[in-house]
Amino acid sequence: MSFRTIEWRDNAVLMIDQTRLPAEEVYHRYTDFTFVADAIRNMIIRGAPAIGVAAAMGIALGAQKINADTAESFFRQLFDICDLMSKTRPTAVNLFWAIERIKKKALELKDSPLDSIKEELKNEAILIEREDLETCKSIGRHGAELIPEGATILTHCNAGGLATAGYGTALGVIRAAHHAGKNIRVFADETRPWLQGARLTTWELMKDNIPVTLISDNMAGFFMSRGEITCCVVGADRIAANGDTANKIGTYSVAVLAREHGIPFYVAAPVSTLDLSMSDGSCIPIEERPVTEVTRIRGIQIAPEGVNVRNPSFDITPARYISAIITEHGIAKDNFKEQFKALAAA
Amino acid sequence: MSFRTIEWRDNAVLMIDQTRLPAEEVYHRYTDFTFVADAIRNMIIRGAPAIGVAAAMGIALGAQKINADTAESFFRQLFDICDLMSKTRPTAVNLFWAIERIKKKALELKDSPLDSIKEELKNEAILIEREDLETCKSIGRHGAELIPEGATILTHCNAGGLATAGYGTALGVIRAAHHAGKNIRVFADETRPWLQGARLTTWELMKDNIPVTLISDNMAGFFMSRGEITCCVVGADRIAANGDTANKIGTYSVAVLAREHGIPFYVAAPVSTLDLSMSDGSCIPIEERPVTEVTRIRGIQIAPEGVNVRNPSFDITPARYISAIITEHGIAKDNFKEQFKALAAA
Repeated sequence: MSFRTIEWRDNAVLMIDQTRLPAEEVYHRYTDFTFVADAIRNMIIRGAPAIGVAAAMGIALGAQKINADTAESFFRQLFDICDLMSKTRPTAVNLFWAIERIKKKALELKDSPLDSIKEELKNEAILIEREDLETCKSIGRHGAELIPEGATILTHCNAGGLATAGYGTALGVIRAAHHAGKNIRVFADETRPWLQGARLTTWELMKDNIPVTLISDNMAGFFMSRGEITCCVVGADRIAANGDTANKIGTYSVAVLAREHGIPFYVAAPVSTLDLSMSDGSCIPIEERPVTEVTRIRGIQIAPEGVNVRNPSFDITPARYISAIITEHGIAKDNFKEQFKALAAA
Repeated sequence: MSFRTIEWRDNAVLMIDQTRLPAEEVYHRYTDFTFVADAIRNMIIRGAPAIGVAAAMGIALGAQKINADTAESFFRQLFDICDLMSKTRPTAVNLFWAIERIKKKALELKDSPLDSIKEELKNEAILIEREDLETCKSIGRHGAELIPEGATILTHCNAGGLATAGYGTALGVIRAAHHAGKNIRVFADETRPWLQGARLTTWELMKDNIPVTLISDNMAGFFMSRGEITCCVVGADRIAANGDTANKIGTYSVAVLAREHGIPFYVAAPVSTLDLSMSDGSCIPIEERPVTEVTRIRGIQIAPEGVNVRNPSFDITPARYISAIITEHGIAKDNFKEQFKALAAA
């Protein structure tokens, strides 16, 4: 990868500004955890696994600066930081998974000197980032087996290196198939309103010399009907126990169209995206984001002033539309509920 | 209607510039037919019935300035103008229908003095415009009966007053239902890449105080899955003999999603949109437009420079997804082939 999505360096969190890609490659350096929370909220960093890493690093960053005489005071302040971080975005479960992991680590160390806890929380956050990269590569290895030679793969949003610590989930599958020597190409939905596909997926695939063609979201059905799409691979923000999957708005439409055309529809995500506490997708909270995401593009007004707008940022794809869910521990098909238990325990 | 899409006034063709709405309400005045052809090609005016009117007026405008000593010379020049006009856009059949109608009128008058032919071609073009307005109102009356009280109607692209001489086809149905006192509201797909929904449909419905909510194209499935859409109404650019319908890219996806959710999907179009010479939709030519429509919005680059892009401007919705086709002569359901013959002859 020729870019770093997020990293810990010299007691600061560095991240590439995804709001300014592809026009500008700008890196921010945060030393204050509240700015990391803002970066998640304002989508400087986005993508379920990446915001998990960002939340962990943000909390670790905040922990370094806690001024406490007692463990009780330290933990009260630490939990306040966790609480703030948990309110940045509601849908992606990886955020909450990472926060819980950092909390658990802190509680394991509760009898240690505070400086040692601070050091270990930093190490845990860095470990989450490193593990995520390995996880993506493992997802890629498993998923690549599903991609036929010569395939044209439709993807939606950006489930790439930019959405993770690197390599990507859906784009990890694509990268692994490409690196295995398969002659593949990608169709990228532009993914309104935020244009993750147009701005980010094309950018990172072009950097890797993987052939990519940009289309607007409403063209996917046309190309499927012409027989130009072999399969679909997308990421996930939260997967319920029955396999229902929350992902970027428009994923559901792609899945319905894929089934209508008999095209396999794959979800690629780490096990940390599974939320076995939710029996099905109807329980997953769907974030609605500011209307200006729809009415303005790069600051330019494209709709009448004062128009009513709805802007749900995610949708739910019921499990029956999903051909397989690709995780770092293997692939689940059919009866997701049973298979998830094994994958989560692996 | 508080705007005029196109009109003939003082030996000139006036039209509102649809590339600049909703930010600016600018009217152009053309006295040269080649500029009318450019206006169609560059989507200053768009929408199947409206470009039919524009082509007719453009040819009539060209005819006024023909300098000919003989009928033979006049007709040669007139047919050259028709030929130029026919090459502006390939998909909407109304363009070719209007050109043929003007040609037929001219040939009927071939023994008349040239000044008289010029005058009659102008009158024929104005008549096409007036008839289109009445046609839309009739489509509206028929279609309104299909719209239940309290309905939320999804529409795609702009099949409104701006796409016709006024009143609209799909939006004609919506206007008629609204004027009949039904408490309805509209969800408008923004319709990438050209944003006809965001820029035009919202603008003209807000002017008429018809409640409208703007969504991006990839949200339609989400709102259907939540039970928030009662029915879909769209326009058409060309309808084959079996009912297969070419319309703005993305229409097919809406139709597939509508059927998946058991939601009626209606097409509203004048009989001039029927192309009974085509047995099915596979024969209809699909225009691919410049890639900058996808990569730039209002001049702002939103994708990496040099990215591959596909930009088909239309898709084909097979007849089996269409619940009914609403024309000015009545509504066709099922067995479109038989019913079209009766409607076209009415």
